[in-house]
Amino acid sequence: MKAVRLHSYNELPTLDSIPEPTITGPWDVIVDVGAAGLCRTDLHIIEGQWEPIQHPDLPYVLGHENAGRVREVGSAVTNVAPGDTVIMHPLTSCGLCAACRVGQDSHCENATFPGINVDGGWAQLLKTNARAVVKLDPSLEPKDIAALADAGLTAYHAVRKSADRLFPGTHAVVVGAGGLGHIGIQALAAITSAEITVVDRSEEALELATKLGAHHTVLATEPTAVAAEVQDVTGGGAHVLFDYVGEHGTENQASELIRNQGDQYVIGYGGRIERDTIEIISREINIIGNLVGTYNDLVELMTLTAQGKVTLHTQVYDLAAAHDAIADLDAGRLVGRGILVPERL
Amino acid sequence: MKAVRLHSYNELPTLDSIPEPTITGPWDVIVDVGAAGLCRTDLHIIEGQWEPIQHPDLPYVLGHENAGRVREVGSAVTNVAPGDTVIMHPLTSCGLCAACRVGQDSHCENATFPGINVDGGWAQLLKTNARAVVKLDPSLEPKDIAALADAGLTAYHAVRKSADRLFPGTHAVVVGAGGLGHIGIQALAAITSAEITVVDRSEEALELATKLGAHHTVLATEPTAVAAEVQDVTGGGAHVLFDYVGEHGTENQASELIRNQGDQYVIGYGGRIERDTIEIISREINIIGNLVGTYNDLVELMTLTAQGKVTLHTQVYDLAAAHDAIADLDAGRLVGRGILVPERL
Amino acid sequence: MKAVRLHSYNELPTLDSIPEPTITGPWDVIVDVGAAGLCRTDLHIIEGQWEPIQHPDLPYVLGHENAGRVREVGSAVTNVAPGDTVIMHPLTSCGLCAACRVGQDSHCENATFPGINVDGGWAQLLKTNARAVVKLDPSLEPKDIAALADAGLTAYHAVRKSADRLFPGTHAVVVGAGGLGHIGIQALAAITSAEITVVDRSEEALELATKLGAHHTVLATEPTAVAAEVQDVTGGGAHVLFDYVGEHGTENQASELIRNQGDQYVIGYGGRIERDTIEIISREINIIGNLVGTYNDLVELMTLTAQGKVTLHTQVYDLAAAHDAIADLDAGRLVGRGILVPERL
Amino acid sequence: MKAVRLHSYNELPTLDSIPEPTITGPWDVIVDVGAAGLCRTDLHIIEGQWEPIQHPDLPYVLGHENAGRVREVGSAVTNVAPGDTVIMHPLTSCGLCAACRVGQDSHCENATFPGINVDGGWAQLLKTNARAVVKLDPSLEPKDIAALADAGLTAYHAVRKSADRLFPGTHAVVVGAGGLGHIGIQALAAITSAEITVVDRSEEALELATKLGAHHTVLATEPTAVAAEVQDVTGGGAHVLFDYVGEHGTENQASELIRNQGDQYVIGYGGRIERDTIEIISREINIIGNLVGTYNDLVELMTLTAQGKVTLHTQVYDLAAAHDAIADLDAGRLVGRGILVPERL
Repeated sequence: MKAVRLHSYNELPTLDSIPEPTITGPWDVIVDVGAAGLCRTDLHIIEGQWEPIQHPDLPYVLGHENAGRVREVGSAVTNVAPGDTVIMHPLTSCGLCAACRVGQDSHCENATFPGINVDGGWAQLLKTNARAVVKLDPSLEPKDIAALADAGLTAYHAVRKSADRLFPGTHAVVVGAGGLGHIGIQALAAITSAEITVVDRSEEALELATKLGAHHTVLATEPTAVAAEVQDVTGGGAHVLFDYVGEHGTENQASELIRNQGDQYVIGYGGRIERDTIEIISREINIIGNLVGTYNDLVELMTLTAQGKVTLHTQVYDLAAAHDAIADLDAGRLVGRGILVPERL
Repeated sequence: MKAVRLHSYNELPTLDSIPEPTITGPWDVIVDVGAAGLCRTDLHIIEGQWEPIQHPDLPYVLGHENAGRVREVGSAVTNVAPGDTVIMHPLTSCGLCAACRVGQDSHCENATFPGINVDGGWAQLLKTNARAVVKLDPSLEPKDIAALADAGLTAYHAVRKSADRLFPGTHAVVVGAGGLGHIGIQALAAITSAEITVVDRSEEALELATKLGAHHTVLATEPTAVAAEVQDVTGGGAHVLFDYVGEHGTENQASELIRNQGDQYVIGYGGRIERDTIEIISREINIIGNLVGTYNDLVELMTLTAQGKVTLHTQVYDLAAAHDAIADLDAGRLVGRGILVPERL
Repeated sequence: MKAVRLHSYNELPTLDSIPEPTITGPWDVIVDVGAAGLCRTDLHIIEGQWEPIQHPDLPYVLGHENAGRVREVGSAVTNVAPGDTVIMHPLTSCGLCAACRVGQDSHCENATFPGINVDGGWAQLLKTNARAVVKLDPSLEPKDIAALADAGLTAYHAVRKSADRLFPGTHAVVVGAGGLGHIGIQALAAITSAEITVVDRSEEALELATKLGAHHTVLATEPTAVAAEVQDVTGGGAHVLFDYVGEHGTENQASELIRNQGDQYVIGYGGRIERDTIEIISREINIIGNLVGTYNDLVELMTLTAQGKVTLHTQVYDLAAAHDAIADLDAGRLVGRGILVPERL
Repeated sequence: MKAVRLHSYNELPTLDSIPEPTITGPWDVIVDVGAAGLCRTDLHIIEGQWEPIQHPDLPYVLGHENAGRVREVGSAVTNVAPGDTVIMHPLTSCGLCAACRVGQDSHCENATFPGINVDGGWAQLLKTNARAVVKLDPSLEPKDIAALADAGLTAYHAVRKSADRLFPGTHAVVVGAGGLGHIGIQALAAITSAEITVVDRSEEALELATKLGAHHTVLATEPTAVAAEVQDVTGGGAHVLFDYVGEHGTENQASELIRNQGDQYVIGYGGRIERDTIEIISREINIIGNLVGTYNDLVELMTLTAQGKVTLHTQVYDLAAAHDAIADLDAGRLVGRGILVPERL
């Protein structure tokens, strides 16, 4: 089959012909890839940034945001059947470890992560497992939702964790209305009743934010002015702040944008939080880490998507044109999320 | 009446004769002070460290951990009557602001803080309000429990917030088994079923910790060794870590002592947390701020105290000997909590 | 002032001239009544049904759903000032008892209940207290929102308690789309992401339900058919069922409309639940009681109302025409909620 | 192998020689049974009471509370290995359905229930699956803990669900200190800080309750007297009541033993709850159903057992003497839980 594989770091992946994956274990599921997302993490993988964390064996197939149609299943698989349209949770969890037993499968101790540490979805076929597949509502097309499998799921997970704090009269502040943030805004509007304030450096992003449900927008100019405006709009700061940037200073400015007893949800990364303990205790504020969502989060996100409450802007490329897609993303020419679509086998 | 007042920063407070407080508002409560705690915060107040935060008018009466007997009440007070033995929550909350309406009275927008920003309890009489007083079980004596009003309440509050995570099989790690920490250990043993591991630099403190309910103790020597030992004893790190120190590096070492999805409860202060956002998100860990407890926390803590599950080691001084007490505390000669007892009016 | 008072049970209340209420305690608040709701409870009061529960001294002023403008406040009142427009929580809570300290003021041990056990709001002036008043957004008019003070608050309270269970993919079933139910539907649409199914005997009520946010409606005809349709529409029954009727069999049919581990929220009353313990345990289902909401619930409901997410249909009468209003309500001629408006003093 | 099988209802099961179970699926686990509990449910099964609910194919092997040593595992099993000592969760859950994905495996849609609807543990070998086995601490012996697999797990589950309500100053009331209740009392003492009051008809049971951690005991004599005494001891009724009886009137008397906003946990069964909706709503009380616990509950219970906080009184019989055990249980001669131990293969 055709697959786009990374052979060495700092070189572009290549379109190769490789053997098709086969069922080897009872939980295996092989999927005809319908669409696979391309995101900034893929650029970081190519640059070698993930090597020390995940150390995959090269060459391997990229693509960690995948959706498609089930082709074949292992002997123990009962929840999907050949022909079902599915989206894949990024991890193939085990169902047996302590994390899995409480539904925290994104912390599974035994999972693989296709596209990150084993072969992923930039290919005609993908091998995953029964615990990773979510059956899709017939109204949903792989190319429209594949990018929700990781980026969207991360954005949703943070909102979902905070939702029981975000009732009428509370304020949610979203910092960064880009790839993740614009999903976060839609999720906030769909599942909470908080007033939503969005901070971004781009006026275009803020316009989109308003269309997606933001009640207030603040252009990120000079930090003191931004803090003053957010404090004013929110009547004293956010109850929950979602930092979808996590670098370039947002991770520390967050403290000025939340109220006492407020939560700073860290989602984006790259920066370093520096905070005096006296500030943390005297204001009783919290810094909350957020990973990719759980399988259940993905099921809920697909429900919202089928209901039309969450939508993605995408730009579709043939899998064979992966280099164009990568170049467009790198150059900032890619509007919305890039999606690779392989030729049907 | 006799009262110990601070006249200027960096000078010792003096024993003065001042007018007795009088009822001026419907919620006022005047208490014959039975005992008032002395703690390190009092030293910091004398040094002027709290001036920029609380800016009290000098001179004023110190003493923010108070218990005694009700002498007189305002016209609207229905919950206590003259003669009742009470401990005082440190804040005189309003009962009307948003924080008070949800039981978070330690964040009251309209409170005074006797001993910190208005006259406190190093005196024969103290003026507080109806929402601050907790009636005591007849088995409890002011001098035995006064120091729970602030230090103990802070230690308990953090444990109480975490309790729904600390079930059989989970691990709590307490860093610092001193004034607050030794209450925290007792609270953990009383209200959770976690396995308790205590880290301290003092072997004596660790021996006490074991008597109070710790299951494991780790002598705080070289950081890497400590981390390895805690990881080993807890099978991968704490589910919840209580940092009762909050400086000298504990605030950053905490990250190595908690497991993924673990919580670092910040209670002590003085240091500065520095943490990469990538670590926070990839491990999905949380940093949780903790202030003094609520009125309800104080009620619960008094219940535990009456049940004999929480006890304090104290050293009692006459109010007139406040200088001795301060000198002993400053010189490290004060074993347990210092308690000042005024002459009965 | 003018006031409509009940002199004896089973006789219509009369429009009397009575002395104006005066400030007697530090927490008192006197309000120029702008509007007061009339509801079925008032009919039950007149019939004497509440005498054994609340035994008010006759004659007394009816009216337990009140809004207006603050005229005068007691010496300790800091949260409102003369001129403020307010809605009144039905209970004048104390702020000191255990229930109040945790924000459960609807269970206050020391409250009065104006219109139920002391003089209410069918008058030109009403005496309440500082802890009962919620300042209104300037966009809200007393006559448009008074009826939310009790009926709306009860409907909202139940939804609010359930909200952390009602996430994407879950099903809420509302039984009874009348006075309370039609607020409940709006609240569900505003603060949860559940799919909403409404069951009612009236096709007109179901049409309104759809406009207010219901996703599915089921005409309450033959019980077995209703159960089958609800099971079908909800994929196995409600996660949470809101029974706004509570009599005529809905209280027992609920069991067939919820799924295993589902909750039956009892809000309406009059009937008697009969349920085998084997069914309760084998299906692990819950029966949840619901009283009027808390002060905080009322603040949230007013926020939703100001945001336009909850609206009431009302029919306005002069206070002097109270008999007409009562007669219309009794005869089923009153569409929406009845509102009495006194002449301005 | 030897196995005790039920051939027809209302006849005693017989000791048969039957083929050993074999691994047929990737998740299968075959266990050398070390001990299997005998409980009243077994008598009900023999009487045919469970036929309409579970309709097993006769003959089949009884025994639904099982512990032993792993003999052989399927190809996909990674969490246990031959030689491991294990206790079995009563259900063989699937890990794929919605209930399993949130850790509510006791509501698994695809489970079997060995000893109830397929062959159970009154045999030398038992076939279960990977998701049912909990590895035991080396300090635990199958015969000492087997009966915790169902009865103990049910008792614990209810306590665990309620634990976040049971903090210092709250009251738990346990009705019935028998097989389940005496585990419930130990669990309450171990994981909550509530004051525990136990109601039972047997003075002997109350004496045991006191030894296990009860703070107060009430002999169940005349209902009105019992209610008065419980109200008195608890200062107004239970915050949470655990009804381990669920018949003979306890299910309705519960209402008088709980305070407003209190919870009645239904665990025992056989009776029928009758409750006016007006009482449920005016007091805002809840009736909470409780099934057997989850896998995670069982892990926690085993932790408590290894810590010595939960112990069982047992009476051990050879498997071949199952008739004696049944007769003793039926005649009330069996003190503690009956345990059947097969000869080692």
